[in-house]
Amino acid sequence: MAMHDVTIEKTIMALLEEKKYQTLKDILVTMEPSDIVSVFEELKEDRMPLLFRLLPKETAAEVFAELDHDWQALLIKGFSDTELREVVNELYVDDAADLVDEMPANVVKRILAQADPQMRKEINQILSFPENSAGSVMTTEYVSLRPMMTVAEAIVRIRRTGIDKETIYTCYVTEERKLLGVVSVKDLLLASNDDTPVSEIMDENVISVNTLTDQEEVARMFSKYDFLALPVVDRGGRMVGIVTFDDAMDILQEETTEDIEKMAGMLPSEKTYLKSSSFELFRNRIPWLALLMVSATFTGIIITGFENALAAQVVLTAFIPMLMDTGGNSGSQASVTIIRALSLGELEFKDMPKVIWKEIKTSVLCGVSLASLCFLKIMFFDRLVLGNTGIDLPTAAVVCVTMAVTVLMAKLVGCSLPMIAKKIGFDPAVMASPFITTIVDALSLLVYFKIATAFLF
Amino acid sequence: MAMHDVTIEKTIMALLEEKKYQTLKDILVTMEPSDIVSVFEELKEDRMPLLFRLLPKETAAEVFAELDHDWQALLIKGFSDTELREVVNELYVDDAADLVDEMPANVVKRILAQADPQMRKEINQILSFPENSAGSVMTTEYVSLRPMMTVAEAIVRIRRTGIDKETIYTCYVTEERKLLGVVSVKDLLLASNDDTPVSEIMDENVISVNTLTDQEEVARMFSKYDFLALPVVDRGGRMVGIVTFDDAMDILQEETTEDIEKMAGMLPSEKTYLKSSSFELFRNRIPWLALLMVSATFTGIIITGFENALAAQVVLTAFIPMLMDTGGNSGSQASVTIIRALSLGELEFKDMPKVIWKEIKTSVLCGVSLASLCFLKIMFFDRLVLGNTGIDLPTAAVVCVTMAVTVLMAKLVGCSLPMIAKKIGFDPAVMASPFITTIVDALSLLVYFKIATAFLF
Repeated sequence: MAMHDVTIEKTIMALLEEKKYQTLKDILVTMEPSDIVSVFEELKEDRMPLLFRLLPKETAAEVFAELDHDWQALLIKGFSDTELREVVNELYVDDAADLVDEMPANVVKRILAQADPQMRKEINQILSFPENSAGSVMTTEYVSLRPMMTVAEAIVRIRRTGIDKETIYTCYVTEERKLLGVVSVKDLLLASNDDTPVSEIMDENVISVNTLTDQEEVARMFSKYDFLALPVVDRGGRMVGIVTFDDAMDILQEETTEDIEKMAGMLPSEKTYLKSSSFELFRNRIPWLALLMVSATFTGIIITGFENALAAQVVLTAFIPMLMDTGGNSGSQASVTIIRALSLGELEFKDMPKVIWKEIKTSVLCGVSLASLCFLKIMFFDRLVLGNTGIDLPTAAVVCVTMAVTVLMAKLVGCSLPMIAKKIGFDPAVMASPFITTIVDALSLLVYFKIATAFLF
Repeated sequence: MAMHDVTIEKTIMALLEEKKYQTLKDILVTMEPSDIVSVFEELKEDRMPLLFRLLPKETAAEVFAELDHDWQALLIKGFSDTELREVVNELYVDDAADLVDEMPANVVKRILAQADPQMRKEINQILSFPENSAGSVMTTEYVSLRPMMTVAEAIVRIRRTGIDKETIYTCYVTEERKLLGVVSVKDLLLASNDDTPVSEIMDENVISVNTLTDQEEVARMFSKYDFLALPVVDRGGRMVGIVTFDDAMDILQEETTEDIEKMAGMLPSEKTYLKSSSFELFRNRIPWLALLMVSATFTGIIITGFENALAAQVVLTAFIPMLMDTGGNSGSQASVTIIRALSLGELEFKDMPKVIWKEIKTSVLCGVSLASLCFLKIMFFDRLVLGNTGIDLPTAAVVCVTMAVTVLMAKLVGCSLPMIAKKIGFDPAVMASPFITTIVDALSLLVYFKIATAFLF
């Protein structure tokens, strides 16, 4: 049933080689645009324009909108002005704006020259909003109704104007562009009387966003309210466009990927992995690697400060990785949990006391369990099985007490830093594993050596 | 515009104390179900049944469906049989099945006793599918049309039967329960002729899923194809239900949270952070912490094996944390990138050679840059500024060469383990930071001491 099969792609390429164009047309008409895009991505560059011209007009625009910007540029280069006009004016205006935003200046000039005047005006409007704002991701094509229309008149209007709209299922009731209410096609179709005015069945409690609302906030509202579309209004409460659920879903995925990349100490990237060059991957990864490496100077200084103690009791060194890693893992668990909860909107800064108290209790449970397990491991496995006779009871005790203290500190640092970052306007996702690990490393070494010097020397 | 304001919650609680029930009804009728749920979550338990009874019937069912299972159980306990019947039969059948799945046996008995026979049958059907399968998350309420109906007849049918359906916008054309095609309300409304048979305008290339398809795969298809609903068919190609986009969006969010939890070395949990007890957090976190702590035995053994070298050249110890952390961070970057790409469906096992080659190039760039930076840091900062005279040129060289080798190894381990895990049927998300760090730690220490003993002694 699912079309994302490798064999379909091979079949298409074979038919293309054999110039079986009618057969290709017959196949393409049965396929979903996303699946056609997958086929395009496997094609050699010079084959693409040919296959593109075999697509039905409407599908062609949908496929074009989903293609990578590089491929779009390539196709446009080969288009005649007529072909370009057909594709551009068939696009939804948000996709057209996206295209104009990404193409080089000379291509933009050609695109705008071929766009209808109305389309050109709307593209420019969308591009005037700041990046990642609701205004920049909205579309200006929606169904608007008047409050005094009857249900029957509204349905007639939808049937007349719906063809170019990205969604017809949510209609907006406006008067002099003021947003008065919202009514769904379901409400209209299921209305008991065709003569009821729209103003009587519309929902006046419209949830809307501002043109400047951040796209992440917009996407979150979709997953909270399960809307098909969300109206975008300007400061004067005048309706300017809608964001549709499919765009919201894409935003949600992108923002999550960004969060995950930041959590792993990388600069976020808009390109997929396979499309990023090694140099781009390097550029995204090196800043945090370098910064964290340099900050390891602190742990170096701490160890150097206790060089004499370590020389006298070399066995202490063997436990450094275990203590550091357990601290790092404990801290990451807390920080990642908090970062995700913040990004899903489940936590706010005011919950901080509750969070800290919960983490204290959790880390006491974790710390005591790990310390006990560690004690058994050291005394029985390391000492008896491995025969590491340098380990005595006091050493084991020092390691285990450090373990418990480290877990406590790690969880406290891990849970509080993301919340503080969010409060002071930084991105909490940065306060994840790598950053927390570096702090916890230094703290755990300090605790380790302080306890060791107090008890062992 | 957005209703998720703290003040609304306070107003409602105040009105409840003052017994202003009519005012409360007037407010509640203007609110979105999700926002009412937020208010409920702030209420004292004994206030909830009272507020619930003030809700309009339809909203009550929606609010009920979104509540936590604990709160649902509490409400049901207080319901009369009549109240329970009203709520249960107003629920969409997928929500009802979810409820039955989560309640204790005695409550389930009461619920099923009050459900209509048809509802009871459909609940049982949904519950018969394995957890996390398409069958278990679908709803059996959808609009079905016959191929020979005209457009006008189809619209009449939708208007007559649509009221109980979760979505009316995608209609399924069936004959003897076989799925023949799909037609949207948009297609029907915009059809040029009311007498055209549905079979002529329907799309026969229906993308569907099987009852046993994993819910994650289902959710991915939604974000790929931007569908409003996806039909679920049984082995015989008979249509049994649909999954709607809002459920798919929830699944996507849940699965991502699970991935993130696993990547940070935790067992995934279905409860939100604030609702999890400290003991539950402990139970989710301790297994990986303990396992990883015990596996640090290897790094301990490696260090013990080079105890004499370390005693002779204590300054080597000071660089252990920096080398370990940089290795861990490099490996996490690669593994997390690959895990996310796998989960978004951007990568497959067959891409492994490309991935490895890309990571080799990236790690050479990262490794050489970090090693150079590290050399400068050691020779100028550690040696001259901090006055650490134990560091000489050969030591610095050993540290920097180890750095470059560690980065290379870390990225290779980090990119290949998740892909191998996926190939052999394990969850790639587990192959993230904590696991990779443990492996890379041992590898980097081995390389460090081997190079050190070769060059320094």
